[in-house]
Amino acid sequence: MPCEVKSCVFIHHLQAKTTASYTDSSDDETSPREKTQVNSKGSSDFCVKNIKQAEFGRREIEIAEQDMSALISLRKRAQGEKPLAGAKVVGCTHITAQTAVLIETLVALGAQCRWTACNIYSTQNEVAAALAESGVSVFAWKGESEDDFWWCIDRCVNVEGWQANMILDDGGDLTHWVYKKYPSVFKKVRGIVEESVTGVHRLYQLSKAGKLCVPAMNVNDSVTKQKFDNLYCCRESILDGLKRTTDVMFGGKQVVVCGYGEVGKGCCSALKALGAIVCVTEIDPICALQACMDGFKVVKLNEVVRQMDMVITCTGNKNVVTREHLDRMKNGCIVCNMGHSNTEIDVASLRTPELTWERVRSQVDHVIWPDGKRVILLAEGRLLNLSCSTVPSFVLSITATTQALALIELYNAPEGRYKQDVYLLPKKMGKSYLNQSLLQFQ
Amino acid sequence: MPCEVKSCVFIHHLQAKTTASYTDSSDDETSPREKTQVNSKGSSDFCVKNIKQAEFGRREIEIAEQDMSALISLRKRAQGEKPLAGAKVVGCTHITAQTAVLIETLVALGAQCRWTACNIYSTQNEVAAALAESGVSVFAWKGESEDDFWWCIDRCVNVEGWQANMILDDGGDLTHWVYKKYPSVFKKVRGIVEESVTGVHRLYQLSKAGKLCVPAMNVNDSVTKQKFDNLYCCRESILDGLKRTTDVMFGGKQVVVCGYGEVGKGCCSALKALGAIVCVTEIDPICALQACMDGFKVVKLNEVVRQMDMVITCTGNKNVVTREHLDRMKNGCIVCNMGHSNTEIDVASLRTPELTWERVRSQVDHVIWPDGKRVILLAEGRLLNLSCSTVPSFVLSITATTQALALIELYNAPEGRYKQDVYLLPKKMGKSYLNQSLLQFQ
Amino acid sequence: MPCEVKSCVFIHHLQAKTTASYTDSSDDETSPREKTQVNSKGSSDFCVKNIKQAEFGRREIEIAEQDMSALISLRKRAQGEKPLAGAKVVGCTHITAQTAVLIETLVALGAQCRWTACNIYSTQNEVAAALAESGVSVFAWKGESEDDFWWCIDRCVNVEGWQANMILDDGGDLTHWVYKKYPSVFKKVRGIVEESVTGVHRLYQLSKAGKLCVPAMNVNDSVTKQKFDNLYCCRESILDGLKRTTDVMFGGKQVVVCGYGEVGKGCCSALKALGAIVCVTEIDPICALQACMDGFKVVKLNEVVRQMDMVITCTGNKNVVTREHLDRMKNGCIVCNMGHSNTEIDVASLRTPELTWERVRSQVDHVIWPDGKRVILLAEGRLLNLSCSTVPSFVLSITATTQALALIELYNAPEGRYKQDVYLLPKKMGKSYLNQSLLQFQ
Amino acid sequence: MPCEVKSCVFIHHLQAKTTASYTDSSDDETSPREKTQVNSKGSSDFCVKNIKQAEFGRREIEIAEQDMSALISLRKRAQGEKPLAGAKVVGCTHITAQTAVLIETLVALGAQCRWTACNIYSTQNEVAAALAESGVSVFAWKGESEDDFWWCIDRCVNVEGWQANMILDDGGDLTHWVYKKYPSVFKKVRGIVEESVTGVHRLYQLSKAGKLCVPAMNVNDSVTKQKFDNLYCCRESILDGLKRTTDVMFGGKQVVVCGYGEVGKGCCSALKALGAIVCVTEIDPICALQACMDGFKVVKLNEVVRQMDMVITCTGNKNVVTREHLDRMKNGCIVCNMGHSNTEIDVASLRTPELTWERVRSQVDHVIWPDGKRVILLAEGRLLNLSCSTVPSFVLSITATTQALALIELYNAPEGRYKQDVYLLPKKMGKSYLNQSLLQFQ
Repeated sequence: MPCEVKSCVFIHHLQAKTTASYTDSSDDETSPREKTQVNSKGSSDFCVKNIKQAEFGRREIEIAEQDMSALISLRKRAQGEKPLAGAKVVGCTHITAQTAVLIETLVALGAQCRWTACNIYSTQNEVAAALAESGVSVFAWKGESEDDFWWCIDRCVNVEGWQANMILDDGGDLTHWVYKKYPSVFKKVRGIVEESVTGVHRLYQLSKAGKLCVPAMNVNDSVTKQKFDNLYCCRESILDGLKRTTDVMFGGKQVVVCGYGEVGKGCCSALKALGAIVCVTEIDPICALQACMDGFKVVKLNEVVRQMDMVITCTGNKNVVTREHLDRMKNGCIVCNMGHSNTEIDVASLRTPELTWERVRSQVDHVIWPDGKRVILLAEGRLLNLSCSTVPSFVLSITATTQALALIELYNAPEGRYKQDVYLLPKKMGKSYLNQSLLQFQ
Repeated sequence: MPCEVKSCVFIHHLQAKTTASYTDSSDDETSPREKTQVNSKGSSDFCVKNIKQAEFGRREIEIAEQDMSALISLRKRAQGEKPLAGAKVVGCTHITAQTAVLIETLVALGAQCRWTACNIYSTQNEVAAALAESGVSVFAWKGESEDDFWWCIDRCVNVEGWQANMILDDGGDLTHWVYKKYPSVFKKVRGIVEESVTGVHRLYQLSKAGKLCVPAMNVNDSVTKQKFDNLYCCRESILDGLKRTTDVMFGGKQVVVCGYGEVGKGCCSALKALGAIVCVTEIDPICALQACMDGFKVVKLNEVVRQMDMVITCTGNKNVVTREHLDRMKNGCIVCNMGHSNTEIDVASLRTPELTWERVRSQVDHVIWPDGKRVILLAEGRLLNLSCSTVPSFVLSITATTQALALIELYNAPEGRYKQDVYLLPKKMGKSYLNQSLLQFQ
Repeated sequence: MPCEVKSCVFIHHLQAKTTASYTDSSDDETSPREKTQVNSKGSSDFCVKNIKQAEFGRREIEIAEQDMSALISLRKRAQGEKPLAGAKVVGCTHITAQTAVLIETLVALGAQCRWTACNIYSTQNEVAAALAESGVSVFAWKGESEDDFWWCIDRCVNVEGWQANMILDDGGDLTHWVYKKYPSVFKKVRGIVEESVTGVHRLYQLSKAGKLCVPAMNVNDSVTKQKFDNLYCCRESILDGLKRTTDVMFGGKQVVVCGYGEVGKGCCSALKALGAIVCVTEIDPICALQACMDGFKVVKLNEVVRQMDMVITCTGNKNVVTREHLDRMKNGCIVCNMGHSNTEIDVASLRTPELTWERVRSQVDHVIWPDGKRVILLAEGRLLNLSCSTVPSFVLSITATTQALALIELYNAPEGRYKQDVYLLPKKMGKSYLNQSLLQFQ
Repeated sequence: MPCEVKSCVFIHHLQAKTTASYTDSSDDETSPREKTQVNSKGSSDFCVKNIKQAEFGRREIEIAEQDMSALISLRKRAQGEKPLAGAKVVGCTHITAQTAVLIETLVALGAQCRWTACNIYSTQNEVAAALAESGVSVFAWKGESEDDFWWCIDRCVNVEGWQANMILDDGGDLTHWVYKKYPSVFKKVRGIVEESVTGVHRLYQLSKAGKLCVPAMNVNDSVTKQKFDNLYCCRESILDGLKRTTDVMFGGKQVVVCGYGEVGKGCCSALKALGAIVCVTEIDPICALQACMDGFKVVKLNEVVRQMDMVITCTGNKNVVTREHLDRMKNGCIVCNMGHSNTEIDVASLRTPELTWERVRSQVDHVIWPDGKRVILLAEGRLLNLSCSTVPSFVLSITATTQALALIELYNAPEGRYKQDVYLLPKKMGKSYLNQSLLQFQ
């Protein structure tokens, strides 16, 4: 029943899979690694959940294209020239309708692409199928094991008769694997484009240690990524993620947001606008003063935790919410994480015999204390916006355009322009494409 | 195709019941009317989709109870007295986790209840199952035909050895049926409690025509319903409904909201807060001046429709968005209705041969013009907030408490206090229970 | 010292007329009652501070006209007809540039007017001069004694060869005086138009006691007045009044607003928008729930008063802020009143020997405790928006139009339409003029 | 006409000192340069308008101290040590209650200070008097001629027996004068602290040209200054400046803000919050996208200028509003500048014979077209927030603390730490004092 199938970005895949899984239930248990699948062109150089979902995935990609004007305008440019002709890109990112638009843009610009997922849960299976069907060698599915994860990366890199000359990474795992297993690949690689905090951090460490052997572009610290991915995106996804998982009413709820960086600013702004009573914890004095000026009381978590209806972390630090805090929360308190790491909430501390876990919905656990108190934990403390909400295509378009431009720049740069160091994309390059994005608002 | 129409109101339930649906797939096609089901107490005086879903439904009801403090406090009062002892309530409302909390509160207060759905799509099957399991005679399932609808009402009213003495209605269909088929029932009925605009309108007409034969309480025009159900509820559900169906980013989008009553005020406030650029159409000068003072430009629809990214109706009038408007919308424009009626958007005008309809997700149609332009129509012009979002339990709790109090008042009023007329609930009665609701914010 | 008490309502006028006052300083001490002044047409049937200020006043009136489109459009209608021809209006209102536009509109519509001030401090002397110069018999100046106040009213009413047939009152003092001293005047009076809460209250009392001898229009309870004068006007004047008196920064300040009616809603909305951290006290449960839904924590004053940077009253009740509260405020706390009465803050309790009062600016007193703590009291607890900010002409235009329409309706109503009772202006009449006001927003 | 030029920055002072000015009116016309004044300690090494105003000034300084906790906490540290002992600071800043708190803090930390004004209009005469009375050698008054301006600077620098070893400048005029007239002074100077864009620009030019002969600290580009002085300060002062000059109602007004940098962001946020309908012009694509995401339509000025009620410039560019734009504005349009330069509005183009200028209030001109249309020009196109509103002490405290810390750092730095270049204050130094400021919000 196709109507069962779609829905919304991450959550719906769970659903999306339902029917598919249904008709395919025979092989539901079978690992994609153990199946042989062939696309309509006869190729089997990919590994996805179910190539038959390609049509559904194609529709999702087309919907995403509508709100990704910057990428599309970049793609149009390719009709005249192929700035990535000859480029062999190995990529490791989330695999979603939006990244599919990026990958297919790279292909339109002349590149050959092999792709794998940077996260074991975030792959949209039908999108992976659509990419495989269109000829991209994709190795990814939702619910990979750790072994699967590295196997997929390996299949991307280690292929006879094809050698990558560009790397596009999100998190640094692909880069790490190449360094460890196939260092000789770097002889041909002209550059690495990296999007995440973690990945960029690793690159700077390599650079500092003198071990970075090709130029790298740091997309994470571009203004567009910082402002758009974090502030504006989280402003919407915090509401979306909370609503889809808990149906909570925001009006009148008491909320503490831990951390007032760009993510925290976005969360606070949205929750306040919908009538929540929001306070903030923050240790950096500049951010704390901004919180004050923006009308949020700056507090200590342990002073307020008892009264809160929701606790949201986005500090970037570890164990911001401890077991002690969790013990003091009131019945029905919702706890979730919007920060980069999955360790802001000490979820491990909740896995003790006296507490009962009850999975009430996908991504929603009730953790139950002996006295009956329930704390509602979302996504087991992983990123709420990745797990339980959608990321608007428009926002992703901005970052994806930056990634594509960085690839083009590194691939075409005359020798000597970039050394074995980490660079930011020259501002001018980005601005002209932002102007394209602006057209859609006029 | 009933499966196409299925609302994503309670999207999570689909998930929740995955396994259940699975095992029950064999009888998916069978009409509930053709099945015989028995609850664990041996009763079969109900008709629901699948009694086996009762456990899932119970969990949903328990979740809802957590945010419905006003009702729960009313229920506690019943431990000392039973103000509805002897009451035989026949009810016709949406059947959801939240109304289940109302129904079970009435039972706790001493009433016997028979219940049916006021809408053919809005029933949560697993909740209906849970009610049936707990002994309430429920006749309702998601996706009833019109014939099913009246059959269910009839089964509620027309039962041997039991005669209703109270009516709780939402929309007036139950009241209408009793008037038409079983007028003698009114000899025993002490009063009608009605929640909806339409139902209240019918009651006033009856009263004017001298045909109202029992006192009635108008819950729709209570302050709490007007403010909370409309303003605050829609402020959240407009965002939720749009996100779940389209994943659209609100920031920077140009939106026109037709109508600046309480619903329009809620929609405008939320969309503006998330960065949309909102303008308003409004013909009442007081509401129009309020829109101006609140910072929304008051426009004519035909002057702005070409530039809009979204068009939202909430005027209460018919054909506010005409085919001519739809013809002039830009590619990708989203059109939806938040108003009371389903006729604000002239959807019928779109069912012409030159336009292609493509169902891209549940509740989402792309209507495609010959030149390729797509207009994205949500819920086929029906109420977005009922079809595509959830209504927060807290808000429903306020209205449900008013309904319960109105029942208690009418049932216990000394003869002569209420005549054959339409009344509002005395303000004092409501306020003391609102104070209970406030406790949860302190 | 009257100069100490001088209101900063129209702070700019003080500046504007600096030179004028200067040259006139010789007669600064002389009471207007002891001077004989003549306008350029030879009339001396008025009593103002200084007729020579007429030119300054005219400029202020012209500035006000620019933002009062509803009144001006009413005035234009008079070019064809004179709906107030023959009307002899005695009026008692604040005398400001905006009321001058109302008075001159009445004159343009055919009325003869005699006018006096309803408040001993609020008269703009130069505007009174401009009215006197243009032929209106005005009796008013800033800083009247109580004796002056009643003398002025008497001069308006008690004049040979002229008898009022309409009364326009703001506060009921004029009506009271006529009842007490010249009851026979009511034989000719066709009606009373009253704007204030207090005045309307008196009229209802008269009506209840069977003593109201002419029809009266209650302008205070019109929708426009409630919404525009209170919500939208206070939203702006709370900021203006606080800034002009204290130059305080709003960002990050902790504020408690006592009362969440329309005035409180306006204050809270503005302060929150500028970054203050606002909480609310409220005893009505509906208003309290609205505060919650709007994102304001509902508190008890004595629980929070110690932490507050500002305390603002707008409950309509007496002694909301007691000496005990004042004793517990922190150093530098600002206290002011936006409510109807001047008794919300128990200012009298501060006039005790152990506290020192220091007048630091006009309308600003530091009340100093023995330990050096200073509480900053504004306008001695009188209405901040009348004393320390301006009221936008646009808002006043809406109310003034309602007053003019009420006069026209009462003056021209066929006998029998209105009895000796208190009425609201028929809604339809107001709406057509509101539409005029809307034009300026398009 | 000095009285015409008088700024309403500190409008209350005009009131406060009414009597004083009055009694001193005899010497009102005399230039301070021609008077000999002596403070109570017998010194006459200063030149202010009227030393007798010292008491009024002292009160203003004390009021300012209450909201400048960061500076006060820095001052307290001086009780133990004198980090500026031996420092001879020559300073050139606005002279207001707030800078007085800075100057007196430097004195408390051990410095000797000589001070002059960086703007011919912005001096608060009574504050200058208070500083002179307390022993600071101040040379400044409101309404200096250009010749006076340089004379004052010269008197600060060129004094027998005293030679500056530190420079604190705001605008670069003092630095320029020393370079031009007394280059040898730089032999002893340990560093320059500069606050303004313009001044910092000059320093970078000097540095680039190899002519900077001492280290300099750029305070302008510190995070605190950018965020607090611009965003948060302008958010409040735009409202304050418009209200005090025009009493305009913000609700429903159509406003275009030219430029969406920090200043524009602050203006837009405040105006939108009070119900204005705001659009933005912006040429930088990143800022333009931010405007979109924040809900402001990005437009071209010439497309919207005809409909606007207010036009506000804050681009930092020249002639943003041209005569052509002004010709097309509607009657009553308010035009003002919040940007750094005074040339954003082409005011010169309005000084033509066919246009009539009418000064209606201090800082407010009506420019009248032949057809009677009036454009309301504020502060003749100079900075509205400096001319027509107050700057909250809290904000100034943050910047002033940075200036003081920069002085301490440069004065005490071991040789070699700073070269002849322009530096930003090390982040760590600022943060500890920001933490002090935070205390007041808790």
